[in-house]
Amino acid sequence: MRISIIGAGKVGDFLGTVLFEAGHQIVEVYNRSLSGAESLAKKTMARPTNELGALSADVDIMIISVKDDAIQAVADKLSVALPSLPLLAHTSGATPAAVLAPFSEKFGVFYPVQSFTFGRNLNPKEIPFCVWSNKKKAENDLEKLANSLSNQVFKINDQQRASLHVAAVFVNNFVNHLYSVGNHLAKKDNWPFELLLPLIQETALKVQQFEPEDGQTGPAIRGDLKTIEAHLTLLEQTPILKELYQNLTLSINPQLKNKLNAL
Amino acid sequence: MRISIIGAGKVGDFLGTVLFEAGHQIVEVYNRSLSGAESLAKKTMARPTNELGALSADVDIMIISVKDDAIQAVADKLSVALPSLPLLAHTSGATPAAVLAPFSEKFGVFYPVQSFTFGRNLNPKEIPFCVWSNKKKAENDLEKLANSLSNQVFKINDQQRASLHVAAVFVNNFVNHLYSVGNHLAKKDNWPFELLLPLIQETALKVQQFEPEDGQTGPAIRGDLKTIEAHLTLLEQTPILKELYQNLTLSINPQLKNKLNAL
Repeated sequence: MRISIIGAGKVGDFLGTVLFEAGHQIVEVYNRSLSGAESLAKKTMARPTNELGALSADVDIMIISVKDDAIQAVADKLSVALPSLPLLAHTSGATPAAVLAPFSEKFGVFYPVQSFTFGRNLNPKEIPFCVWSNKKKAENDLEKLANSLSNQVFKINDQQRASLHVAAVFVNNFVNHLYSVGNHLAKKDNWPFELLLPLIQETALKVQQFEPEDGQTGPAIRGDLKTIEAHLTLLEQTPILKELYQNLTLSINPQLKNKLNAL
Repeated sequence: MRISIIGAGKVGDFLGTVLFEAGHQIVEVYNRSLSGAESLAKKTMARPTNELGALSADVDIMIISVKDDAIQAVADKLSVALPSLPLLAHTSGATPAAVLAPFSEKFGVFYPVQSFTFGRNLNPKEIPFCVWSNKKKAENDLEKLANSLSNQVFKINDQQRASLHVAAVFVNNFVNHLYSVGNHLAKKDNWPFELLLPLIQETALKVQQFEPEDGQTGPAIRGDLKTIEAHLTLLEQTPILKELYQNLTLSINPQLKNKLNAL
């Protein structure tokens, strides 16, 4: 397919690169800074630009991979500058497809469920893609496009995707924060954070095989108040971590509420 | 070395098996239920027993891998029944070595920092071992024993190990609970939990390479109140998850406190 990438941040850079590698034509790359556009355009033999009005409407799909709160403004500017727009698809987990409705007859979502980092090369085959469009034919095109990259393609509507995005915050942002807590304790109490890495890895691997509820272990689920109390004492100096420990313990085992309060 | 395993639960089963495979002699396996002892004893050519008093003191190390709150009672019974005890080492992250002090002249800790599950075969080479003893020679023996299994062996004292164990609760028990939250949302809102598995995996892989603080992304660290508000609205029906979301968000970005309260 003939594709333009609008926004060459981490998501746009990844999608442009792997779509090009999968044999699609990347026609143009837009980015607010020209140097950002040029970096991706060079890799994908595309034309770089930092002017939305200079983009060609003669493509099959425009993939809008800008920050969530810029999606609407970008689509608005495109619709003003260009005579008619092709299929517009944004890549945001947090944004309803409908924000694109005022601007193009065909619109949709092309959302890779993954966290992208410059310097880590991810295999698109192992990334789930969520697609949706207001038009059957457009949805099939997005599905085909996703299938050219990945074996895991799902039709997911706005309601499902909103829930999925909250869940992604829990298992990615919040989990990473708990890793930071581990790192903080390691530095404070003088032991190497590397001690935790195999445990972190195993915890993530186990859930690929078993339901997480079945793998829940530790003092909270056991109701082991002696260990919980010892841990809370250890966290006395860092009240924000003590509170977090209490909240997570109660979330795992709400029946401990009165007993925890009595400690 | 000549070793007895006292307690054939998940940790004892793992240690007995890999110590045997590494060429050590497993002399005896004790377990409260004889069938548990027999299962490990069979794999390790050891003598099974469910009587502590029937164990031989003629070994180099007794590894006590029973539940945390049974360690002292087990050591007590051993010291009463046997004329003199060899090096006693428990495998608990949460328990001071000193609980063994009344019972044997030589005591210590042999703590593998990992979560064990029946049905998952873990490679001991990739597991960090924390060793400590009150006697130099005994500590060297524990270190040698650990080195025969793993390349990651650390001398870790009680204070460090207590902190490490709290951290392990954060990155294992609490993280797994956040995976459960994802699973709960998936079931409630009708999308496949499998959508999250590559993200879970990548989050755990990224921290093997980068400091977790450097990889923190998402609405909390960005101070993106619009997205946070949308997520809290979505969690309205499950107050316990809403509260957990708020707590974790504040723990990541304490400066949001007043703004979050005003939502």
